[in-house]
Amino acid sequence: MIGPEDVEAAAHVTGGVTHRTPTVTSRTLDQLVGASVFVKAECLQRTGSFKFRGAYNKIASLSREERRRGVVAFSSGNHAQAVALAARVLGAEATIVMPADAPSLKLEATRGYDAAVVTYDRYTEDREAIAASLAEERGLTVVPPFEDPLVMAGQGTAALELLHDAGELDLFLAPMSGGGLMAGCATIVRARSPSARVIGVEPEASDDTRRSLEAGERVTLPEVPRTIADALQLRCPGAQTFEVNRRLLDGVVTASDAELVAAMRFAFERMKLVVEPGGVAALAALLAGRVETGGRVGLILSGGNIGADRFAELVLEK
Amino acid sequence: MIGPEDVEAAAHVTGGVTHRTPTVTSRTLDQLVGASVFVKAECLQRTGSFKFRGAYNKIASLSREERRRGVVAFSSGNHAQAVALAARVLGAEATIVMPADAPSLKLEATRGYDAAVVTYDRYTEDREAIAASLAEERGLTVVPPFEDPLVMAGQGTAALELLHDAGELDLFLAPMSGGGLMAGCATIVRARSPSARVIGVEPEASDDTRRSLEAGERVTLPEVPRTIADALQLRCPGAQTFEVNRRLLDGVVTASDAELVAAMRFAFERMKLVVEPGGVAALAALLAGRVETGGRVGLILSGGNIGADRFAELVLEK
Repeated sequence: MIGPEDVEAAAHVTGGVTHRTPTVTSRTLDQLVGASVFVKAECLQRTGSFKFRGAYNKIASLSREERRRGVVAFSSGNHAQAVALAARVLGAEATIVMPADAPSLKLEATRGYDAAVVTYDRYTEDREAIAASLAEERGLTVVPPFEDPLVMAGQGTAALELLHDAGELDLFLAPMSGGGLMAGCATIVRARSPSARVIGVEPEASDDTRRSLEAGERVTLPEVPRTIADALQLRCPGAQTFEVNRRLLDGVVTASDAELVAAMRFAFERMKLVVEPGGVAALAALLAGRVETGGRVGLILSGGNIGADRFAELVLEK
Repeated sequence: MIGPEDVEAAAHVTGGVTHRTPTVTSRTLDQLVGASVFVKAECLQRTGSFKFRGAYNKIASLSREERRRGVVAFSSGNHAQAVALAARVLGAEATIVMPADAPSLKLEATRGYDAAVVTYDRYTEDREAIAASLAEERGLTVVPPFEDPLVMAGQGTAALELLHDAGELDLFLAPMSGGGLMAGCATIVRARSPSARVIGVEPEASDDTRRSLEAGERVTLPEVPRTIADALQLRCPGAQTFEVNRRLLDGVVTASDAELVAAMRFAFERMKLVVEPGGVAALAALLAGRVETGGRVGLILSGGNIGADRFAELVLEK
């Protein structure tokens, strides 16, 4: 478990290294949803997503000797770039375990931050096992994508900044996958804005946390969910994050792929922001009327790592 | 002519009403061009472009009686939205003369700010004459897109904020069409950062200011230039703006349509910002090596009003 003091401590560690991303407002958005909406643009965070906050907070906690030995992470997406950059900023060597068939853009971006990339075959090999054996062989520290108190607390600094800009809220929304962003954010929102409802948003096909909350325990989806939100494709919430989120959340709602694309278009045309399908989930739920609004609403646009071609395909398909 | 004190005065008038848009940096950009680049994201300005600065500064100067009678403007898009919103904020009625083939996003947005829109044929009709006759008939005040000291000074506040964030510069770049943005910006850059080179950027097909500077007098292009940069399609620089710019500019370079699209893609993928073809001209020239760089470079991304479909078409064509 983490407390608001952990998020505040993370803010001291990460402040000045993470970007203080802008909190954006849109009169059109306010009119459409009937509320004053404060949008935290984490797509403008370093490496293009909130993940840099948690990765930096975690690696900054390592001893000089641990940093010297290096860190390892497995991810095909935003966490990979976040760990690679955070490690470089802190003088640690990073090894990232990525699928051999990961998009070349993502492989290049991760290598661009000077990380050593170890590829594996998605169909025959187990990335966690590879990372674990690398950690053991070389004495590397694993930087988990969400199952870690320092990672969760780091992610919560996004909501801390949002509350600073927006003041107390009546509703807080954030995308959910492993649950690390929400665990950190819910912890600080509950403490600083106690009357706010706190609601997570998942893709319709990837509603493992929604189902888990209903069941009262962690539920694993029968197969890898099919959704355009590649950053939120997970079969099961984290054990630690679920412990936090089950206590703090008022609920989880979902957004369909079509609603995600509509929200990406809205962010593009009305806010001039590039947001990836998973990153736009909270805005999508709001625009689609999936959650009761009114008063002051805060939400996180959690990432913007999408190629222009992929964006073009998604927009023109609909 | 205007002086730096006019830009400073405009900052007092517009401050708190205009957004203080972020100055963005990108390590990838710095590496690509071999300089420290400070990017002023005016695509995040109210109405999606810098034009709101000048329009607000001008309309705020009108008497109560003039505001009551209303204002009129002619524009291909961004100035239209800017005048519409500035007028509404200041309690004036706005009539906007727009080309019938302006991007539908811009037409809709202008109507969305409660302005009355009058359309004309860009290739056969004279928008200035239409606006002038409306002004005479109805007692409206014309808010010129660039030929006005208060408009120029208002636009200059973008560079004033950039200098505040970035410090002294070695090079300043901004897109040019009528020349109002550059006139205001060059005025303050020359005063606050006297050793900076100041260079304008035009689309290759719309190089009226480049030709005018070479000729030593205003040159009119034989026909309306065909370029994807709809915001920069002009045959001749303004008389007042040219008087300012001929004295303050070190030169003008151009960017091709393909270079504009490449820069839009870069802004999208690397900076997560939506920038329209005309708005990205300065970044395009920098990325295409059209200007000698080094040291500290400041540039303006002047607008982001492009529909998602149009963006998708442009990106997938290349």
